[in-house]
Formats: sequence, C-alpha cells, structure tokens
Amino acid sequence: MHLSPLYIEDAVKAALREDLGHGFDATSDLLIPASKRARGILRTRENGYLAGLIVALSTFSMLHGDFEMSVHIQDGERLKPGAAIAEIEGPARAMLTGERVALNFLNHMSGVASLTAAYVKEVKGTGAEICDTRKTLPGLRLFQKYAVYVGGGANHRFGLDDALLIKDNHIAVAGGIGQALDQARMLAGHTKKIEIEVDTLKQLEEVLAHGGADIIMLDNFTTPDLKRAVKMGGGHVPLEASGGVTLESVKAIAQTGVDYISVGALTHSVPQLDIGLDIKL
Amino acid sequence: MHLSPLYIEDAVKAALREDLGHGFDATSDLLIPASKRARGILRTRENGYLAGLIVALSTFSMLHGDFEMSVHIQDGERLKPGAAIAEIEGPARAMLTGERVALNFLNHMSGVASLTAAYVKEVKGTGAEICDTRKTLPGLRLFQKYAVYVGGGANHRFGLDDALLIKDNHIAVAGGIGQALDQARMLAGHTKKIEIEVDTLKQLEEVLAHGGADIIMLDNFTTPDLKRAVKMGGGHVPLEASGGVTLESVKAIAQTGVDYISVGALTHSVPQLDIGLDIKL
Amino acid sequence: MHLSPLYIEDAVKAALREDLGHGFDATSDLLIPASKRARGILRTRENGYLAGLIVALSTFSMLHGDFEMSVHIQDGERLKPGAAIAEIEGPARAMLTGERVALNFLNHMSGVASLTAAYVKEVKGTGAEICDTRKTLPGLRLFQKYAVYVGGGANHRFGLDDALLIKDNHIAVAGGIGQALDQARMLAGHTKKIEIEVDTLKQLEEVLAHGGADIIMLDNFTTPDLKRAVKMGGGHVPLEASGGVTLESVKAIAQTGVDYISVGALTHSVPQLDIGLDIKL
Amino acid sequence: MHLSPLYIEDAVKAALREDLGHGFDATSDLLIPASKRARGILRTRENGYLAGLIVALSTFSMLHGDFEMSVHIQDGERLKPGAAIAEIEGPARAMLTGERVALNFLNHMSGVASLTAAYVKEVKGTGAEICDTRKTLPGLRLFQKYAVYVGGGANHRFGLDDALLIKDNHIAVAGGIGQALDQARMLAGHTKKIEIEVDTLKQLEEVLAHGGADIIMLDNFTTPDLKRAVKMGGGHVPLEASGGVTLESVKAIAQTGVDYISVGALTHSVPQLDIGLDIKL
Amino acid sequence: MHLSPLYIEDAVKAALREDLGHGFDATSDLLIPASKRARGILRTRENGYLAGLIVALSTFSMLHGDFEMSVHIQDGERLKPGAAIAEIEGPARAMLTGERVALNFLNHMSGVASLTAAYVKEVKGTGAEICDTRKTLPGLRLFQKYAVYVGGGANHRFGLDDALLIKDNHIAVAGGIGQALDQARMLAGHTKKIEIEVDTLKQLEEVLAHGGADIIMLDNFTTPDLKRAVKMGGGHVPLEASGGVTLESVKAIAQTGVDYISVGALTHSVPQLDIGLDIKL
Amino acid sequence: MHLSPLYIEDAVKAALREDLGHGFDATSDLLIPASKRARGILRTRENGYLAGLIVALSTFSMLHGDFEMSVHIQDGERLKPGAAIAEIEGPARAMLTGERVALNFLNHMSGVASLTAAYVKEVKGTGAEICDTRKTLPGLRLFQKYAVYVGGGANHRFGLDDALLIKDNHIAVAGGIGQALDQARMLAGHTKKIEIEVDTLKQLEEVLAHGGADIIMLDNFTTPDLKRAVKMGGGHVPLEASGGVTLESVKAIAQTGVDYISVGALTHSVPQLDIGLDIKL
Repeated sequence: MHLSPLYIEDAVKAALREDLGHGFDATSDLLIPASKRARGILRTRENGYLAGLIVALSTFSMLHGDFEMSVHIQDGERLKPGAAIAEIEGPARAMLTGERVALNFLNHMSGVASLTAAYVKEVKGTGAEICDTRKTLPGLRLFQKYAVYVGGGANHRFGLDDALLIKDNHIAVAGGIGQALDQARMLAGHTKKIEIEVDTLKQLEEVLAHGGADIIMLDNFTTPDLKRAVKMGGGHVPLEASGGVTLESVKAIAQTGVDYISVGALTHSVPQLDIGLDIKL
Repeated sequence: MHLSPLYIEDAVKAALREDLGHGFDATSDLLIPASKRARGILRTRENGYLAGLIVALSTFSMLHGDFEMSVHIQDGERLKPGAAIAEIEGPARAMLTGERVALNFLNHMSGVASLTAAYVKEVKGTGAEICDTRKTLPGLRLFQKYAVYVGGGANHRFGLDDALLIKDNHIAVAGGIGQALDQARMLAGHTKKIEIEVDTLKQLEEVLAHGGADIIMLDNFTTPDLKRAVKMGGGHVPLEASGGVTLESVKAIAQTGVDYISVGALTHSVPQLDIGLDIKL
Repeated sequence: MHLSPLYIEDAVKAALREDLGHGFDATSDLLIPASKRARGILRTRENGYLAGLIVALSTFSMLHGDFEMSVHIQDGERLKPGAAIAEIEGPARAMLTGERVALNFLNHMSGVASLTAAYVKEVKGTGAEICDTRKTLPGLRLFQKYAVYVGGGANHRFGLDDALLIKDNHIAVAGGIGQALDQARMLAGHTKKIEIEVDTLKQLEEVLAHGGADIIMLDNFTTPDLKRAVKMGGGHVPLEASGGVTLESVKAIAQTGVDYISVGALTHSVPQLDIGLDIKL
Repeated sequence: MHLSPLYIEDAVKAALREDLGHGFDATSDLLIPASKRARGILRTRENGYLAGLIVALSTFSMLHGDFEMSVHIQDGERLKPGAAIAEIEGPARAMLTGERVALNFLNHMSGVASLTAAYVKEVKGTGAEICDTRKTLPGLRLFQKYAVYVGGGANHRFGLDDALLIKDNHIAVAGGIGQALDQARMLAGHTKKIEIEVDTLKQLEEVLAHGGADIIMLDNFTTPDLKRAVKMGGGHVPLEASGGVTLESVKAIAQTGVDYISVGALTHSVPQLDIGLDIKL
Repeated sequence: MHLSPLYIEDAVKAALREDLGHGFDATSDLLIPASKRARGILRTRENGYLAGLIVALSTFSMLHGDFEMSVHIQDGERLKPGAAIAEIEGPARAMLTGERVALNFLNHMSGVASLTAAYVKEVKGTGAEICDTRKTLPGLRLFQKYAVYVGGGANHRFGLDDALLIKDNHIAVAGGIGQALDQARMLAGHTKKIEIEVDTLKQLEEVLAHGGADIIMLDNFTTPDLKRAVKMGGGHVPLEASGGVTLESVKAIAQTGVDYISVGALTHSVPQLDIGLDIKL
Repeated sequence: MHLSPLYIEDAVKAALREDLGHGFDATSDLLIPASKRARGILRTRENGYLAGLIVALSTFSMLHGDFEMSVHIQDGERLKPGAAIAEIEGPARAMLTGERVALNFLNHMSGVASLTAAYVKEVKGTGAEICDTRKTLPGLRLFQKYAVYVGGGANHRFGLDDALLIKDNHIAVAGGIGQALDQARMLAGHTKKIEIEVDTLKQLEEVLAHGGADIIMLDNFTTPDLKRAVKMGGGHVPLEASGGVTLESVKAIAQTGVDYISVGALTHSVPQLDIGLDIKL
C-alpha cells in the first residue's frame, strides 16, 4: 500500500487550514522575517516504528516551495531514541508554522505503527496475522490503516463498501444464517468477499454447514472455544478472532490457530510516538 | 463552548463519506429491507464522562430523515457502566450504516473528556486548571477541544492565529526576550493575548523584568523550579506549566501554585471510552 | 445496492451548479412568477427499464422545499412507451429550472439499465452473469454501476482499491504469474479478492497450476478457447470473459460456460432512454 | 474555445478520487516498485477525431511530477486506426494507476468529437451548422461541449444562465408569444440573446410579427414545414431546427435552409472512440 | 433574476465559517443559555433601497432550525429611516451569532441597490439604462449583480464566458477590427452576443462599416463625441457608454442618446446602507 | 501579518471560477493564439497605498505556469499616480483572462489600505490606533484585515471565536455587567481576551468597579464623555472608541486620549484605488 499524493495533499491542507484558522501564524508572521532560513532535524525520542514521514514532509512543502529535504529512515523502519529521521532546510517562518501539523501526523501515525508492531511481535511464529478494524478516528482512516500496514499488520476492509461483513442484526433480519449467506452470495457481486460474524460454536457449525464464507469472524470467543473453532474449520476457511483483544491476551489467542486477529485498539486508542523537530536557525 | 451544527454537519458528512467509500453499505443495503425499523440504545460499558452525543446522533439523521431520538444523559455528565445514554428509533438500514461512524466520534470524544476529568480530579483543590494544547489529531481539533472543555478542562489557543505563543526560536530570531516581547506588543493587535515560553528561571526573570506577558509558559521545569517561579511571579502574571505532564506527576505540579497545566496527552494519546449501540429489531 | 442520499445530494447539487452557471435560470426567473404552480408527469417514450428515479426527483426538492411527489413505477421495473413513471406538483419555476438536470440523470441511468437488461436477456438460461467494468464516465461511476445493478447486471469492482486485478504489466514486472500471485496473496489483506487476467490458455494453465485466484479473467479469448478454458477450470474457479463483447456476440460467449461476462459498453457507450417531463400549468 | 487548466484539474482530481476510492491502487501499489519506469503510447484503434488529449495527459501528471510527454496529434485532428497520438515516459506505477481515468476521458471526449464530425460531414455544403444542447451528462458538460467544438460543431448555450430560451410553458404562463417576448426583452439585459421555440408555422408567424427574436427554434418540424419556415423567415432571423435529429435525417433537414441544427444525441448517446494505452516496461 | 437557494446556502455557510473561525462564538456560547429566545427587528437607519433580505434571513435559519420570520418590506422597495423590514423570533444565541453575517450581506447588497437607484434616478426620462460591469468584489458577483438588478439597473455579462467583449488588445492581435469581428462571428456560437469596444469615432466608423456588432461600447468618449456616435449609429446598433462615469456626469451622458451606461463604481466602490438588528430578549 | 499562499490560492481560484463561469474566456480563447506573449505593467492612476500585490500576481500564475514577474513597489508603500508597481511577462491569453480578477483584488485591497492610511494620518501624534471591525464583506475578511494592517491600522478580532466582546444583549441575559464579566472570566479560557462594550459612563464605572476587562469599548460616546472616560480609566485599561467614526470626526476622538478607535467604514464602505494593467503585445 502506498499513500497517494492526492490524498496526502487533501489531508495536509485541511490540517493546515485547521491550525491557521483565520489564516495566519500570529507569532511567526510577526517575529520571523521572510528571508530567514533554518535547518530542522526530525528526531525520535522513543523506541518505535516510523510511519507518515512523507505526510510530515509534505506539510512544509505545502507552505513554501523552497524546502530541501533528505531522508535517513523510511516508513516501517525501527526507531531508536535520538535517531535522526530526516533533515529539512528552508524558510524559518514556514518551518515554524508547519511544525505542529507535521508532528501531529507523524507522531500519531508512528504511534499506530508502533502499537501494531508490538502486537505483531507478540504473535510471531504462530502464523496469525494482526489486522485493523473500522474503529478508526473520523477523517484519519486511510492514514491509520496505512500505518497499520507499515507496522506489519494486515488491513481489514476500508469501509462499508469494499467487502461484506454479516453481523447478528443482518442475520436476524434475513431470517437466519443460511438465508443471510444465500442473499449475500446472490447479490454481492463476484469481486467482493463475504465475511460472517458468529458468536457461538453452534453458529459456526451452521455457517460451515451452509458452505462457509470467505472469512468467518469469531466474536468474543474464549480461548478454548477458539481452539474448537479452529478444529471445526479444518483449515478450509480463514478464521478471524475479534473482540477485546489486548497486548496481554493476543499471544494466547494466536496460539489457538486462528488466521487473523482484529484489534480495534490499533486505531481507536493510540498513544503517540514522541518525535520532535530540532530547529537550528 | 458549543458545537455549531454547521461544523458538526461538515465533519459527520466527511466521516460518512470516508466509511461509505464508493457510496454504499455493501452488507446492509443487500440484507436489510428499506422498510425495516429498529430501536437502538447507546449504552456505556465503562466509567467515564460523556462527550459528543449530538455528533453521534447527527450521524443517523444525516443518513435518513426519519429518526426519533430521546436523550437521557447530557455531555459532561458522568457515565456508569450499563447506563443508557440515549435511545433512537428509525430505519434499521440507516441505523446499521451509521453505527460505526457515530461510535467512532462518541467513543473518542468521551475518551478525551474522561481523560481530562481524570487530570482535573487529580488537581482538585489546588487552584490549577488543566488545559489542552495544539497537539491534536488532524481534522479533529474542534471536537477534541470541545471534549476537553466538557471534561472540565480549559482550552488553550485553538490555532496559530488566535493568540501568540513566543517560543525559543522566535526569541532567538528576534534577538532576545525583550526584543521579542516589544515586537509582539507593537504588532499583535490589542485583542490577542501574548504568551511567552521560558526554559529557565533566568529567562523568567528577564520576562518579568521586561514587563511580563499575558501568560508565561514554564517549559519542562522541575517541581522545585516551578515553586521558585511561582514565588518570582508573585501572582501578577498567570503561569502555565508544560512538558511531559502525566497523571502521576500532575498533582505535584499543581501543588507548586502554577495557574495552568497544559497536557498534550489529553488529545494526542487518548484511550477511547467504550460505548456501544444495542440494537433491537 | 442502494444510493445513499448523501451521494445523491452531492451529485445533484453539482449538476445544478453546472447548469445554473453564474447562478440563475435566465428565462424562468423572468417569465414565471414565484407563486405559479405546476404539475408534471415523468413519462417514458420508449421501451426500457427505469433507473435513477430518486435522483431525478431529488433535483426538484433541492431547488425548492415545496414539492409533492407520487411514484408509480420503481427503479428496475420495465417501461412501456407512454407509461407514467411519477407525478410531481409544486412551484412551476423550480420545476422548469430542474427539468433538464433531472432528465439528464434519469435518461442516462435508464439507458444504462436498459442496455444492461438487453444483455442479460441474451444470456438468459446460460448461467452467465453480465457485469460492468471501470470503463465508466468520469464522475458518474456510482450512478452507472447502480443502473447496471438495477438492470439485472452484477457489479465488478468499483475502483482501484476494492479488489485486485492483476494484468499483463503487473505480471511482467513481478517476474511471472506465480510471483505476481504470491506477492498479491501475501500483501493484499484477507478481505480483498484477487483476480488475474490471462490472454492465453497457456497462461490460464499457469494460474491454475499456481493455485488459481478468486477470479480469472479470460481476455479476448475466442469462443472455442473459452470452451477449453471452462473445461480446464473444471468449475473450481470463477471465469470471467472480457474484451469487445457485443449484443451480437454475448450469447455465444455465455454458452461456453463462463461464469461472468464483463461489458465495457454498458457504461462507456450508452444510448439514453427517452423519458420526458410533461408539464401542466 | 480552450479548456482552462483550473477546470481540467478539478475534473481530473475528482475522477481520480472516484477511481482510487479509499485512496490507493490495490494492485499496482503492491506489485509495481516505486522506482520502476515505463513508456506508454496512446494509440487509436478506430477512425475518428481526437478530443481531450490534454485532459488525459493531465491525469498522469496529477499522480506524479515526473512524467515526460510528447504529442504527435492535436485535438481536432483526424485519427486513423493504429495512429500514435502521444507518448509518455515516467513511473510505471502512476502510469498504471492513471491509465483508466485518462482513457475514460479521452475515449468519451473523442467519441463526442467523432460523432459531431459525422453529423458535420453530412451537412457539408448546405450552410447549416450542427450544434449541441443542454442534454449533457451530469458533470461533463464543459468537456462534452469542448469536444463538440473540436469536432466541428457550434456550441449552443452552456447553461440556464447565459442565454434565454423561451419554451411552450414560458409562453403559456406569460400569456402568449408577444407578452413573453416583451417581458424577456425588457428584463433580460442587453448582453444575452433571446431564443424562442415554436412548434407550428402559426407560432412562427406570431414571433415574426412580433419583431422576431435573436434565434428561433423550430421544434419537431417536418421537412416541408422547415422549408416553409425558412421562406417565411426570409433570412432575417437565424433558424434552428431541433428534435429527434439523426445521422439519417440530418442532411434533409440541412437542405431546407435552416441555419442551425441542434442534436441532443451528440452528448446524451455517445459511443466511445476506442483509444488504448500501449505500455512498455 | 432570482437568487437560487443553492447559491445563497453556499455563500452564507462560507460567510458563517469565516466568522466562526475555529468553530464557535466565544461570547454568546458562554453567556447565552441555549433555551433563551429573542425577537429581532431589521430596521433601516437611512434612506435607500432594500436588497438581500432573503440572504440575511437565511443566515439565521442556517444556524438553527427554529426561527419564525415575517417580512414587511421586499427587495427592491424603498426604505425610509426607521422602517421595520422584517421580524424574526427564535433562539437568542443563534440570533446573536448570526447577526453580523446577516447584516454584512444586507448592508452591502442594499448599498449596491441604493447606489444603483441613485444613478437610475439621474437618467430618468432619457431612455438610457444603467448597467454594471465585471468590476465586482471577488466572490460576491452574483449578489452584487442581483442588487444592481433590484435597484433598477440592467446586468452586463456575468463573466468571461457568457458574451464576448472585444477590446483593444484583442483587436491588435487579430490584426484589426474587421478581422476581430469576423473571427468572433465565425467561432463564438450563435447564442452569444458580441460586443466590441471602440476608443475613437474612427474606430466606430470601422465597426459600422464592417456590419456592426450586437453592442458597441464607447470607451471614455467625451459628451460631444458620444452625441456624434449616436448620430452615426443611427439607432441600428445599441451603444454603451463606459469609463469613469459618476453621479455627477451620468445625466449629461444619458442625454447624448446612448442606450446603456456601464458604471464600475456600482460594485467596486460601494458605501453600505446602514441597517441594524434591534434585539429584544 | 502575512497572507498564507494556501489562503491566497483558495481565494484566487474561487474568484477565477466565478469569472470563468462555465469554464472559459469566450473572447480571448477565440481571438488570442496560445503562443502569443505579452508584457504588462501594473500602474496606479491615483495617490494611495498598495495592498494585495501578491494576490494579484498569483492570479496570473494560477492560470498559466509560464509568467515572469518583477516587483517594484511592495505592499504598504505609498503610490503616486503613474507609478509602475510590477511588471509581468507571459502568455497574452492568460494575461487577458486574469486581468480583471487580479485588479478586482488589488484595487479593493489597495482601497482598504489607502482609506486606513487616511484615518491613521488624521490621528498621527495622538497615540490612538485605528482598528478594523467585523463589518467586513462576506468572504473577504482576511484580505480586508490584511489591507488594514498594511495601511497602518491595527486588527481587531478576526471572528467570533478569537476574543470575547460582551455587548448589551449579553449583559442583559447574564443579569448585569458583574455577572457577565464573572462568567466570561470563568469560562473563556486563559488565552482569550475579554472586551466589554459600555454605552454610558455609569456602565463604565460598573465595569471598572468590577475589576475591568482586557479592553473596554466605549460605544457611541460624545467627545466630552470620551474625555471623562479616559480620566476614569486612568490608563489602567485600554479604551476603544466606537460608533459612526468618520474621517471628519476621528481626530477629535483621538485627542480625547482613547487608545483605539474602531472604524467599520474601513471595510464596509470602501472606494477602490484605481490601478490598471497596461498591456503591450
């Protein structure tokens, strides 16, 4: 996955407009002459993984055409405290004006990547993959999902439109698991995957009896039940464990043999990674 | 502070477009008949404070004109696990389509309010106020700052334009603290406050000698230095402690006598508050 | 599939702004008094299938709040010349102002649905499904794909993001069919389908030998080759015939036993269906 | 007429966002390395006329700054099967990502130009001009009308605001042809032309008796009636034939001596012109 | 002419966003309870003519759904000091928040209408019409031109696209007046008027010798030359006087017999009309 | 203060779209060949002060990438009739297309700066500063306030969000001046200034007795009352005179000793400064 410049531009300009409010930087516009130049180094202060560097750097180039940048560390690489990520040289005023927006993107996205990497590390060797959910922060989904990808996770669907996820209420209205699956298969179009969520082993049995689905989500299953589910599935259909997964519980879940573990916290409860911009005038 | 319907509409529509992607809910559009109605209850699963209810409810009304809603708990009120926050009745399809976007706003905003309330509780009785920063998530600043306010915090400036904050680089370029303050006072306009950041007691002394400022930010001061700063300030100018404040350290900081404590984590590292929508068909 | 009011509103408002240009209807604003009311009947002048009625009707309600509408025929239903589709009653000025935009949507969308239905009719009984492509008119994809769906077709992917379609150039860069499939499976995420395009039976053999894909597109195959491909596939993987399909050739293609036939012309070369608005003042 | 870069940029970015959906090209982002370059040739596969080349080429430059392009054939020139229209050299990933959007514009616009040219050829030597209508595809009017112009046609009004077209309903509300013309002349402003539509020779007589108009549209007149109308008009006022004009009927209509023939099909029922992008890696 | 609700909504929302900045009314949100209601009367404090009432009233309804309004004076009517224009009743907070934006539109638009009416009064009885230009304030053209219309003036073209105006530089590049007119007539399309600007009587002669134009603009002619021009024109082609027209000079210009007098000051140098909102809590 | 390129781009593009309407320049597109180049000089025709040069020049560069510009006079500098402000060299078509929009910005902004400078000149030596208000033209606030700043004035608040201004209605609802001030101080956040408007010396007394405010606005005070107010204030709190200030009355007001004088006319009733573009082909 790759962040399109078109989408980066839209998001960064919106963030700059949000920060500039009525349209100016009341402090730097007054105190920093237009001709003053500066050099800045993006430097991490914590262990973690980098994500969003191109977004951060774009912030500066959208404020002024006259920046030069050199990149030392790429998205997805590991960061050690003090590491110099990238250097920028350009107009001091634009550098100070853009600093906060650049870091707000970078620290959040690197926070997501680092959290993802922590989960991925826990499940290493089990064959299970960590994936995200639609529990993202409004307006930031693309950037968060990109960071999950960069952190070593897999992306679940990006929205309501790109795959089906049949849940309890859909099943209830359709009149049962079989009916729901039949309708979905008939109407969904052949390019979309159909995932179905089950809450019990009995429901899983029903799904399997009805020909399965592209993915079966096991929602809030206990570890023993996950093991039973894996045995029932027999490797014929990908199984995704979901519900209240934490860094503490994820390893045990992975060891049950499920294929995917979806973790809402990757995007809804993210501690930032502390990266700063050291400026030399 | 009050969230303008205009800004809620913009943000909610953008979030719905982000979730609907190419323009539809692949699952509910196929499995839920247009005429089917449902009843939903927003119910918290954790202790915390509510923020963003109107945003969440707007999500549904923007998808369909035919919802009825009744509110039991207001923004800023305390939530106990299981509490019914609000009830909505309307078309099942739109309810399922809007559920995730509504909760993404509500759980994040209530997360911010709850985290703020936790900080506020720590400093109770000290006279210090907890405030936010510009370290917000891109595109969500207004909603996060509103949640800080609702959680009992005070709002720092909303952007680069509505107050001056003179930092080390501004001082360096201006040629010193005195010159920076003079220029700012001369040019800023009489309706904007001027805050200046100092890193040492010596700098504080310089600021005070130069007539002070509307606010002085004490950046990364030790607790003993904060105490000395408060004594030096003599109550004539509001002092704001800043830098790496945590739930563990905030009380001691507050007890030094500073007037404001700004906390980036309120908005950059927010655990969500878990609120769900229980749907009855 | 269901057209979200949010997306209808965006598209209709954009079309009205395109038609109103600098902001007014030079003729009706001058010649029709604001208080004058009118009654209009949407009436087809040809055989075909209806699509986009809600879009057309929205045009009028976006120009004025005071319209009453009654619908006699629904999207997807068959139209015979002269049939009254819907009636609207409201301000004459807004009715005349909105007429062209409403019909531009309705006649094009019904054109797509009718063309689709013609293809679907040809393949009736063969088990093959007619589907669309990404060869759509810029800005109208959602509305065209909805019309294909309503006309009895199946929707192929909606964009570059919601499924993978590996083509000759991707294969060449990846270093072969096997490598392309391996990389795609490893990186695509488990919620996206992978389709691969093959130009020869030899390539098909390679794909099958390499574990197949979610869908295999047979690009520009002769009818005899399509038959051979179906035999080779053995029903284990869905096969999609593609390339220069016409109303004349589609039946023979369908009879080869392929599962899907994708037809670019459904959306790139569409004769409108002639529906008019008969206005009574 | 000339397509403003501002409007091209808006339309192309919107089309790219439509195709990229949630923001990426799921296939090329994974399978094509960022550093891989490619060469592409736009080549026609049919006879026709070129329109929209600059739009197509802009698609690539909006995805990446590093494309080089050379143009061999200009808008409005005739295309023979196999002709190389333009060559582009640049990043393979962006070329594959932009290909479909570029061709969707180019093939549709060239389709419009080619269809227009076919009509123009039919009326050659008669003195009649072929012109378009407001029966355009929503969102594409500027691009379609430009293509009509490039194909040798004349542009009718671009929207409801740039000229008056008095139709039957306007006449009915105004109280007659005379009243409608009087009101229009009094109120329209001196920079706008006034066209009036008549359905019968009797109405034409009334218009002529009332001082005529800038243009008179003869709606759905038979060929003999068109001839009579031309005689009645006596060359003093431009006459425009309109209504159900086809490639078969247009020559006879032109030979009646009318000045303009407006053809809705030029923009509402357009077969694409098949132009492809041959990519060499 | 009539202001479309679509365009009013766009402009008013943009103006409210401009005034609300980061998204709130810092004073009223804090000091006015949500339940408090108020009554307001729009009252003029000067003589003049009303324009933009619907725009002003829309401001309030876009901030809150619960306003009731009654209108006593309509756009275009004469205002005497103290006259009550309209009354609104609704939430006090939204009324105070919207007050300034509503008045900014109303006072400017009524200023334009009143200035126009003053010019129109001067030329009364001469047969000349006062018209506007493209010298409008960026973003406000539609609203200013509507106000000119309401004040009794005629509208010149609305933009670069809806009529041709051939000026000195166009003539120079085309190679002379004859060539410019020929090219324009051949290419402009039959629905657009062609106006040509002349600076001398000699140029006027050339234009007339070359078949005239739809309108001839006499730029910066002296009054005696205007009279000569009128005689030369012989009433066959509309003549428009232009250039530095003032309230003092307009009557003499009108008495020369020209048909139109275009006045840039109507929209580029407008004193507001003072209308206030008297609020009763 | 400094105009951000981001905001200039948004405003200039919007103004160009407003002028280009359906998307083209009907005259220059037809009569000026794409390859023709021209040289233009921005030249003032009146005395005044320059503001908005960068905005005007941006207009041309947004229409075409191939302009060269040299600047002789900067924003804020004094203009004498005939002075050459800047020279541009580039494509003639884009120069003619952009001319009006460029001048509409430049002449209005320079008009605001010149009017401001006239007021500033009147109060020279008194110590009073001239400032603007929120009585700006919708959509142009940032550009008008920038011009006020450039003309030597001070900027009052930019919107409803960046400072509090407590007026009569707020006081009435709050229950009195004391209550209003108390609530505002408690809730406003420490980074916002609080201004309060008083109509009488008695109210001023109340405000002073209640601890004052950051600024006190004296609304519609007579000159003698302003003098009394200044004496009462004793220099402890900034006083702002407001209400019906004119070029005739401003000096006497300034001599009363008030600190600020806010003048609505600076932005609501602005005569343009006449600057033209002399084009050489």
